[in-house]
Amino acid sequence: MSAFNKLVAHSQKISHFEHLAAIVGWDQAAMMPSGGNEARSSAVAELSVHIHSLHTQPQLADWFAQAEQETLNTQDCATLRELKRQWQQANLLPESLVQAKSLAGSKCEHAWRSQRGDNDWQGFEKNWAEVVKLSQEEAQIRAEANNLTPYDAMLDIYEPGTSSESLDRLFNDVKTWLPDLIDQVIEKQSTEHFIEPQGTFETSKQKALGLEVMKLLQFDFEHGRLDESVHPFCGGVPSDVRITTRYDENEFVQSLMGIVHETGHARYEQGLPTALAGLPSGEARSMGIHESQSLFFEMQVGRSDAFIQHLAQLAGKHFTQHDKALFTQENFQKLYTRVKKDFIRVDADELTYPAHVILRYEIERDLINGNIKHTDVPELWDSKMQQYLGLSTQGNFKNGCMQDIHWTDGAFGYFPSYTLGAMYAAQFMASMKQSVDVDGAIRSGDLSPIFTWLSDNIWSKGSLLTTDELVKQATGETLNASHFKQHLANRYL
Amino acid sequence: MSAFNKLVAHSQKISHFEHLAAIVGWDQAAMMPSGGNEARSSAVAELSVHIHSLHTQPQLADWFAQAEQETLNTQDCATLRELKRQWQQANLLPESLVQAKSLAGSKCEHAWRSQRGDNDWQGFEKNWAEVVKLSQEEAQIRAEANNLTPYDAMLDIYEPGTSSESLDRLFNDVKTWLPDLIDQVIEKQSTEHFIEPQGTFETSKQKALGLEVMKLLQFDFEHGRLDESVHPFCGGVPSDVRITTRYDENEFVQSLMGIVHETGHARYEQGLPTALAGLPSGEARSMGIHESQSLFFEMQVGRSDAFIQHLAQLAGKHFTQHDKALFTQENFQKLYTRVKKDFIRVDADELTYPAHVILRYEIERDLINGNIKHTDVPELWDSKMQQYLGLSTQGNFKNGCMQDIHWTDGAFGYFPSYTLGAMYAAQFMASMKQSVDVDGAIRSGDLSPIFTWLSDNIWSKGSLLTTDELVKQATGETLNASHFKQHLANRYL
Repeated sequence: MSAFNKLVAHSQKISHFEHLAAIVGWDQAAMMPSGGNEARSSAVAELSVHIHSLHTQPQLADWFAQAEQETLNTQDCATLRELKRQWQQANLLPESLVQAKSLAGSKCEHAWRSQRGDNDWQGFEKNWAEVVKLSQEEAQIRAEANNLTPYDAMLDIYEPGTSSESLDRLFNDVKTWLPDLIDQVIEKQSTEHFIEPQGTFETSKQKALGLEVMKLLQFDFEHGRLDESVHPFCGGVPSDVRITTRYDENEFVQSLMGIVHETGHARYEQGLPTALAGLPSGEARSMGIHESQSLFFEMQVGRSDAFIQHLAQLAGKHFTQHDKALFTQENFQKLYTRVKKDFIRVDADELTYPAHVILRYEIERDLINGNIKHTDVPELWDSKMQQYLGLSTQGNFKNGCMQDIHWTDGAFGYFPSYTLGAMYAAQFMASMKQSVDVDGAIRSGDLSPIFTWLSDNIWSKGSLLTTDELVKQATGETLNASHFKQHLANRYL
Repeated sequence: MSAFNKLVAHSQKISHFEHLAAIVGWDQAAMMPSGGNEARSSAVAELSVHIHSLHTQPQLADWFAQAEQETLNTQDCATLRELKRQWQQANLLPESLVQAKSLAGSKCEHAWRSQRGDNDWQGFEKNWAEVVKLSQEEAQIRAEANNLTPYDAMLDIYEPGTSSESLDRLFNDVKTWLPDLIDQVIEKQSTEHFIEPQGTFETSKQKALGLEVMKLLQFDFEHGRLDESVHPFCGGVPSDVRITTRYDENEFVQSLMGIVHETGHARYEQGLPTALAGLPSGEARSMGIHESQSLFFEMQVGRSDAFIQHLAQLAGKHFTQHDKALFTQENFQKLYTRVKKDFIRVDADELTYPAHVILRYEIERDLINGNIKHTDVPELWDSKMQQYLGLSTQGNFKNGCMQDIHWTDGAFGYFPSYTLGAMYAAQFMASMKQSVDVDGAIRSGDLSPIFTWLSDNIWSKGSLLTTDELVKQATGETLNASHFKQHLANRYL
């Protein structure tokens, strides 16, 4: 057996254990009763140790050295590139650092769950100091191995190939027009009237509505399902994708669009190349590209006039005991495009969201590169919030720098993916519209032409191409903010 | 670290992987969409190989040899005994035989799923020949290792310590009085009238009713849940027990008592000693004892006058649109104690069930011991059915020897557990009644005294005692059929 084939077999073996991890992870969030948590956590930890031991087996180094001498076709070259990337990532950090960061992160995150509510920055800061320090150490090791700056080395975990140089360029562009655009839109919307949902929207009806919308989006129910969890997510494996949502019986707006969002993630997973199952080249390209698919569904398709019409009509069919005026297309459009300057990223609308992300990016970049101290963060947060959204977070830590879970356990480098995803999605849509009658397809209720384009250009490619290659092949150009700007102006002005 | 402690740590490690297997197994039966099956099966097979490799690590032989020289307290001695038993079972068979039997079993079982409906004995027999041959080889190897007859060596997998000698004694006793008793009861019931459920019993209401009954039976919802599957079962792990049922909207009788049955299994698991979690000494004693708990719930408690009264009242509360006469205690009693001679074991009532089991036991014993050929089975089945239940299965293979899944993949030695369970349950109840006011407890709606007895005498013991010791300590005598006979006579005559 060639060394390359040995690596392939080894990767497939690892993927079987990752399959188990994905399913029990879904179960832990969506099904498990609380009393099962302790034993489950031990079982999952044992599995993680086993997966790590498979990633770090000593013979792999030889196999990679040999495989690089073997003659491989283009696809296998890409597979080898991704296998090696994964292997290097798994072997880069000393075990002691991984454990120390995991411990410090768990401790900080756990305490944060109550400290946030108490607005207790002093308490939080003490735990967080250790997380930041260990993350900086991690970034330093990654930086030296990959010849990158520390922050770019962290970015590379989530967005391989992306640099802070290109993020600066993209985000600085956005910063030149976004604050003005937000002000204009808020001014425009200030005189609009609309009806907000009131009264009870039963969970069972919301679920039935959600399932119907998933059907419209051609979610493959032979290879996936919808359930409930406190924090909605898309999990499972490509042959069996598990998405979740959270129902609030006082309104249906959030959960309904949440399902559209997760369905975008799910269809990407369901559309990955089955011939490459069990190999990193058959997996999703990056967090940003993953988010581009969920946001393509949620923002590009989901909030289009044509799709809003479907949503309004379907919702009206399920909630027969409410005022019909709630379910007009016009009212739905207003419900789903309200813009508001506010503190909380996860509740932010499409237009203000990038401001939240850019703020975080600029702070975490300087923090990981050692240009600021972790104690500088609250003040920087306040000044950037004032600058981008005109809001002060002075003394308001819980709605300021303590609002997100990401930094509590050291996931620095993740935030940019959200806005990269939104930009990719806008660029994909602009390109798609050159060959596909998108509005006509949505209006007809058969969205197949849209999904065929996504499948051909994104889903079926897995990680065979680099992100830049993928985007260039799909759209004819590398990522830039112009399509995003145009999209926002079209929708909101 | 002592060799014993090394063995303990190794067992806990294995139990973590078995935890994962239990949860993904539950998921496969209760949650997984069909398209997920192929990848899931590969992942589960990989996990099985890993678990097997842990059971067969070469250093274990040394650890056992050393541990047997170490000074251990009584509990640790029992743990060592069970660890060794488990290790021997896992190492007894050559890999080639395990694989061949697994393949032949899968092939036979898969084909049987359609052959049964076609009454195709000729087709089935060809595949089954190989399963029987390999099972005989397995039995021979087990027999030589344990100095037992081949069939007793198979029995030992499911019922450690039980022999066909003792089964012959117990079952021959039953055969002296059961056929007459069945005839008497059928004669007595022939003039009784009762109302059968008709119309629609919605799944959601059946589920709500089932959950209420589980609450009455003090199922711990912090450590378990109820779901649906085609074949009801009790799975998961002691800290998180997953039971399932199947709802038929035409009636609620089966599903309701099915839930009571699975709750019995579940409470045994939930009541196992947590201090021995991850060790075989902390697991359920045997299949027969497990079945004794489900049948204690279903037959001893569940069909008692006092409990039937609860069931009737609760069902009437949930199914408000049906004739109230359906939900009287008297009618429920008749619904739940109908006796009928029929072909199918899984549909059999409490009274005729042992006849089905004894028939299978006698045939599989002679088959595995090589005293009959597998082609003799249909004729033997027919003659024994005529003898025990007065029914002929001449030419009726699908309702005769092809009705059960057990033999298709070579699970010989399992069937006796069902009737052993029924006998243990009757003997436990007789003993319990000497110190506990069982009827009073049930009538009051607080069944705690019953569960305290079961916990003290059965659940909390795990596998620390042998089955004989367990039964003798709990009831003052080893297993005999007299309590079972008395119980049936009391209930049905």
